[in-house]
Amino acid sequence: MKISTLSIGDELICGQLTDTNAGTIAAMLLAEGLRVQRHLAVGDNEPDIIGALADLGRVSDAIIVTGGLGPTADDLTSRAASRATGRRLIIHEEARTHVRDMSSKLENLIVCPLSDKQAMIPTKSSLICNPTGTACGFHLMHNGCFMFFMPGVPSEMVIMLRDSVIPFLLKRVSHKRVIRSVTLNIFGPCEAEVDELLTGIARAEHGLTLGICVTFPWMSVTLRAEADNDYSANNLLMPAVQIAMERLGDYCFSTGNISMDDTVAGLFRKHGLTLSLAESCSGGLIAKRITDIPGSSNYFIEGVVTYSNDAKMRLLGVTAELLDSSGSVSAECASAMAEGVRRTSGSDLGLAVSGIAGPEGGSSSKPVGTVYISLAAPESCRTECFQFNGNRDAIRIITAWTALDWLRRYLLTNENGSKI
Amino acid sequence: MKISTLSIGDELICGQLTDTNAGTIAAMLLAEGLRVQRHLAVGDNEPDIIGALADLGRVSDAIIVTGGLGPTADDLTSRAASRATGRRLIIHEEARTHVRDMSSKLENLIVCPLSDKQAMIPTKSSLICNPTGTACGFHLMHNGCFMFFMPGVPSEMVIMLRDSVIPFLLKRVSHKRVIRSVTLNIFGPCEAEVDELLTGIARAEHGLTLGICVTFPWMSVTLRAEADNDYSANNLLMPAVQIAMERLGDYCFSTGNISMDDTVAGLFRKHGLTLSLAESCSGGLIAKRITDIPGSSNYFIEGVVTYSNDAKMRLLGVTAELLDSSGSVSAECASAMAEGVRRTSGSDLGLAVSGIAGPEGGSSSKPVGTVYISLAAPESCRTECFQFNGNRDAIRIITAWTALDWLRRYLLTNENGSKI
Repeated sequence: MKISTLSIGDELICGQLTDTNAGTIAAMLLAEGLRVQRHLAVGDNEPDIIGALADLGRVSDAIIVTGGLGPTADDLTSRAASRATGRRLIIHEEARTHVRDMSSKLENLIVCPLSDKQAMIPTKSSLICNPTGTACGFHLMHNGCFMFFMPGVPSEMVIMLRDSVIPFLLKRVSHKRVIRSVTLNIFGPCEAEVDELLTGIARAEHGLTLGICVTFPWMSVTLRAEADNDYSANNLLMPAVQIAMERLGDYCFSTGNISMDDTVAGLFRKHGLTLSLAESCSGGLIAKRITDIPGSSNYFIEGVVTYSNDAKMRLLGVTAELLDSSGSVSAECASAMAEGVRRTSGSDLGLAVSGIAGPEGGSSSKPVGTVYISLAAPESCRTECFQFNGNRDAIRIITAWTALDWLRRYLLTNENGSKI
Repeated sequence: MKISTLSIGDELICGQLTDTNAGTIAAMLLAEGLRVQRHLAVGDNEPDIIGALADLGRVSDAIIVTGGLGPTADDLTSRAASRATGRRLIIHEEARTHVRDMSSKLENLIVCPLSDKQAMIPTKSSLICNPTGTACGFHLMHNGCFMFFMPGVPSEMVIMLRDSVIPFLLKRVSHKRVIRSVTLNIFGPCEAEVDELLTGIARAEHGLTLGICVTFPWMSVTLRAEADNDYSANNLLMPAVQIAMERLGDYCFSTGNISMDDTVAGLFRKHGLTLSLAESCSGGLIAKRITDIPGSSNYFIEGVVTYSNDAKMRLLGVTAELLDSSGSVSAECASAMAEGVRRTSGSDLGLAVSGIAGPEGGSSSKPVGTVYISLAAPESCRTECFQFNGNRDAIRIITAWTALDWLRRYLLTNENGSKI
């Protein structure tokens, strides 16, 4: 079944609001083995909506439309749908009752003549129940294409899609294909390297595809198997996933929706170790990411953001001599910060970062992007210099990622040991 | 000129990644008086790309395509473009040189035979310079429609659009309508309140429109005037902007692209005051946002993330008695933290946050979302309790926003004084 989505709204087409409905619909359908082929978005403009329905109708068995069903004058979807399909627009009694019932239920809404607009739908259409909002959805069949119209409010749309549209579609899929997928999340190598590592794993001719999605500074690889049933899909998918994981090794930090932050949090919980942070150029970003995770107070003792040399001396015990001889952006200073925060906080691990995020502050020997990361553990202190590219934001982001990846690798290495 | 965008990528069409390029392109074009009419997205799939180019080509004078120009096997845009326009795909020597130069410049990339794929473009096309990445863009004219092909990496695409595509389009626009807009950024009131404050300002019939875009926890109001020339557009726009700014008062923290963080940074620079932070539930997020801004080292002395009571005592001088009697989430503790960090760091202002971000840790007297914010200044220390709604992320985000807004309001109030 060829499915398209159509999102309607001026705010989408002028870049004021990012369209998230299209992606939500695609992901929910894909989980049921239904694939979206096209996402189209147009403004609140009748000719454009009519044109979009006609174009998508030619190449689709079903169109899922969101937006433009509200009570205000710029909501034009129902009228455009009636014109596009050569139907009259009528007041639907059941819809009118719904609009009135919901209006009186929802706060701040007054039943006014305007609201009848939301009860007007094309003839020969069926309502789609909207249990959480006033706008009625409807669906109709035109030239062999199912067209579903829903409001653009994401929370309302999701319920209508789940409870009405998807069940309707699934009943009409003649030969249902099963799609199963696994996503591997990767940090470290570049895209070309990942591509090379995964050469030969995808076999599109058998229904096994592979997609790489780069989201600076990490990426994800999704392996997707399409087959007649669950059993065949899994048989196709799982060996490929195993090979991919073996080849990627510890570049792969998690699967599915588990973030790097979740992964690191899980390892801290598992090992019962505690952590403190001393950040300079990352300015609290690492602490922010550690504490994004609920329950982080169990292993995160404290963080200090020591931007000034004075703070480095007072809070971390870095000496004036060291700052004089090596400077604040140096391996010596980063180690002293990591060991300092570990000592003063009494935590098992002390992680420190010192570098130049720019745009100012670089020199020929230490250009912008020079970052020292140091991890002080009970048995040793490891410090390394990195040279990152990009602007201030990018340097700070990749610094935090690299630091979190160090923690992950450290905890993984100690996986089999007891508390260090 | 009718303009469409086409975003290419399986990750977009299966809901794995939200397409932000379409909106970015639309907003950048709109700022130049060019309106996008359709956004289309399809997967990494040759027939779909070819079909999309054909469909959009019929209704557009220009198509701006992003994505699918990478080095890997699933990047199919160049080949699809060549087939859609009946051209051969050739290795473009200038593009090859570019790919090799950039590959050797960017770290971790090896010039391998694979890279030549990125130098293959359709015949009778012109390169679009990509100064920050390996993928070459190109443009061509087919059946009266300009087609621009750029990589999907947002940072690369934006530069290419700004420096090459937009100037190219502007030269070819016959009757240019001028669109001028001003965006006001607002923190504090809810959408309904803003809507009411701005009643009657928009006059669509004269070409003056108003859009509210809510981006939790702040929003922006864009006033947009469309006219035949700059003079008329400005005459329409500026009085409306003035009225809107008067009605919004100090809810409006900036205009245009100036963020809350920029605004606060500007005020610190202006006043020559220094700041230190003591964060508990916000976990470094405020420090991260302060240090996001280049040059923040001039006024930001230090930050501490004191998750544990021990850290609050050791680093901030909060007493055990206070923690015993009032608890760590209390007005007393927040004030002691603010005054403590101000005292130990020697900075002019000390800002502290203590609260319960959840999901655990709430009680009937202090439910999840209870947050104390305290600002210690030379002349006084102000502390307030907030009750925020939402999940852990939302509570932390609105806590940081509110704290930054406090700094903004404090610095504004002292606008006319000299150093306090």
